[in-house]
Amino acid sequence: MKKHNFYAGPSILPQYTIKNTAEAVLDFAGTGLSVLEISHRSKEFVAVMEEAQALFKELLNIPEGYHVLFLGGGASTQFAMVPFNLMKKKAAYLNTGAWAAKAIKEAKGFGEVVEVASSKDATYNYIPKGYEIPADADYFHITTNNTIYGTEIREDFDIDTLLVADMSSDILSRPVDVSKYALIYGGAQKNLAPSGVTFVIVREDILGHVDRHIPTMLDYRTHIEKGSMFNTPPVLPVFSALQTLKWLKENGGVEGAQKRNEEKAALLYGEIDRNKLFKPTVADPADRSLMNVCFVMNDEYVEQEKAFLDFATERGMVGIKGHRSVGGFRASLYNAMPIESVQALVDTMKEFESKF
Amino acid sequence: MKKHNFYAGPSILPQYTIKNTAEAVLDFAGTGLSVLEISHRSKEFVAVMEEAQALFKELLNIPEGYHVLFLGGGASTQFAMVPFNLMKKKAAYLNTGAWAAKAIKEAKGFGEVVEVASSKDATYNYIPKGYEIPADADYFHITTNNTIYGTEIREDFDIDTLLVADMSSDILSRPVDVSKYALIYGGAQKNLAPSGVTFVIVREDILGHVDRHIPTMLDYRTHIEKGSMFNTPPVLPVFSALQTLKWLKENGGVEGAQKRNEEKAALLYGEIDRNKLFKPTVADPADRSLMNVCFVMNDEYVEQEKAFLDFATERGMVGIKGHRSVGGFRASLYNAMPIESVQALVDTMKEFESKF
Repeated sequence: MKKHNFYAGPSILPQYTIKNTAEAVLDFAGTGLSVLEISHRSKEFVAVMEEAQALFKELLNIPEGYHVLFLGGGASTQFAMVPFNLMKKKAAYLNTGAWAAKAIKEAKGFGEVVEVASSKDATYNYIPKGYEIPADADYFHITTNNTIYGTEIREDFDIDTLLVADMSSDILSRPVDVSKYALIYGGAQKNLAPSGVTFVIVREDILGHVDRHIPTMLDYRTHIEKGSMFNTPPVLPVFSALQTLKWLKENGGVEGAQKRNEEKAALLYGEIDRNKLFKPTVADPADRSLMNVCFVMNDEYVEQEKAFLDFATERGMVGIKGHRSVGGFRASLYNAMPIESVQALVDTMKEFESKF
Repeated sequence: MKKHNFYAGPSILPQYTIKNTAEAVLDFAGTGLSVLEISHRSKEFVAVMEEAQALFKELLNIPEGYHVLFLGGGASTQFAMVPFNLMKKKAAYLNTGAWAAKAIKEAKGFGEVVEVASSKDATYNYIPKGYEIPADADYFHITTNNTIYGTEIREDFDIDTLLVADMSSDILSRPVDVSKYALIYGGAQKNLAPSGVTFVIVREDILGHVDRHIPTMLDYRTHIEKGSMFNTPPVLPVFSALQTLKWLKENGGVEGAQKRNEEKAALLYGEIDRNKLFKPTVADPADRSLMNVCFVMNDEYVEQEKAFLDFATERGMVGIKGHRSVGGFRASLYNAMPIESVQALVDTMKEFESKF
């Protein structure tokens, strides 16, 4: 049976990435060796790293003065690296979910943190607006897509404070005006690569202005200076990232991805709004994530939740159980998700509805 | 042409690991999904993580009270995590190479560092002995195998200070009395897995005794509490690590590995000592690494260095160029290296000698 991969992350990758990675595990770039056992200093892998950085810059139209890094440690390590490198005294954070809250908790170890607004009181089911960022904040941190709750900030804010964004789960899903950001980071295991590599886009001139001692590996300048090769990088995840970037370029770049993502999301949100069994968890369409579509049973059908999960699982839907803090269902529609899989889920919802 | 992979790391892995990883990239554990796109919270991957930790403990006979962690960030991140978690005021380090020196540099950001001895004056071509460890040191740090220079400490020191060891390049190559160590860590990309995962063996009762603020991701207790799943782990590298651990168990465990490693090293060092063209860089056999065999041209044949490298490359030898700080040649003979490849290198050395 065909499986439809709706996991929130690690999550679906293009078949192009999967096929090329499987081949490289057996023979990498005609070396006669596996990509698992190739030196990161080999000319073949150095070419992979350089092409991945260049293609990332090309696809997101990243301006001069920014660097693209591929690091280990995950976005959770970035929660500490950002204040380590950028916080002099005070930073501002927008609390839009559990991951934003973790970033806030981490930053508090480095100075004063102002939470400018929070939607925690409503299980993070909307994006707060109309807040003020303190003029003396060293930076303002946002989480553009909130995987657990299905909300997304799809606007590139134009503010006077340095803007830092965790884009773990919506990077490369739409064009981004990178010039509006000082730093963008994320775990790669949604729209880019298997888990084990973290991307960072950083404007070089924001670094070097704090007084604290920064451990070498946590200092962005270390990795800029060495082109992400200060220490051994995660070779296979970077190789797979390059495959995904090539696939994206062949398929219309981030503009093409955005168009497909809007179509997929419209298809599924349309069905959730129409189907009498379900309702969305995010009321305002402007706040709804194109990446993670969260929905629950309508009040009169709450007892059918388990039955629908089983029904969908029997039809090849994988990973649609909602996060325990929200309940219900979550279908993640990352770049690599074909509209045929979204249609299969929609068909399953219709078929289940016809039983009532 | 058959390639013989003598890379220092990332480096040769068992064909069992490569084959099973290639298969899992196409279909992981019968899920119909790639290991690249499987949730780390799926029951199939949770089973991989738990089995890898259990098998690591079994193979190294790790006593109660220790935890095995699989983290991101590389050994270079451990250079900071060790003092972050363990240094109250003072730590002692043995300087046996460039990696030890990096660990020392990092520790100086956290307190007083006593370098108890160093072989830097002799391009690190021996392991210093007869030093004293200050009684008030919070821990004593060693690098058991020095990849660049071909030296190795193959003894488990019995000391009164907490013993911390970077075993990046000789873990699982021999039995280790883990009870003599407080903490053992290393990048996995030599004897265990592709790059992107770092192993840590830590005795729990040594943690929680420092006053400084430790960022969440840099606190070993975070990862102990969550079984290395606090954040998304590097899924594929952990899967591959499990394959290597299974292979090792099937092949006599660390005792079997030690026997094979001793045979391989004896074969190659024997040829270096015999062949009139070459000489070893490490004079004392007791200090010679079984993992990385370093040798240079004898004085009267120095001009043949490039010719031998080309000669060997034409015969399928990969990665035998020595590190620039030592020159000459380095053949890495990690666990997965078959004796047939070592014999092929020895035959190449003999064949080249016959030309003179």
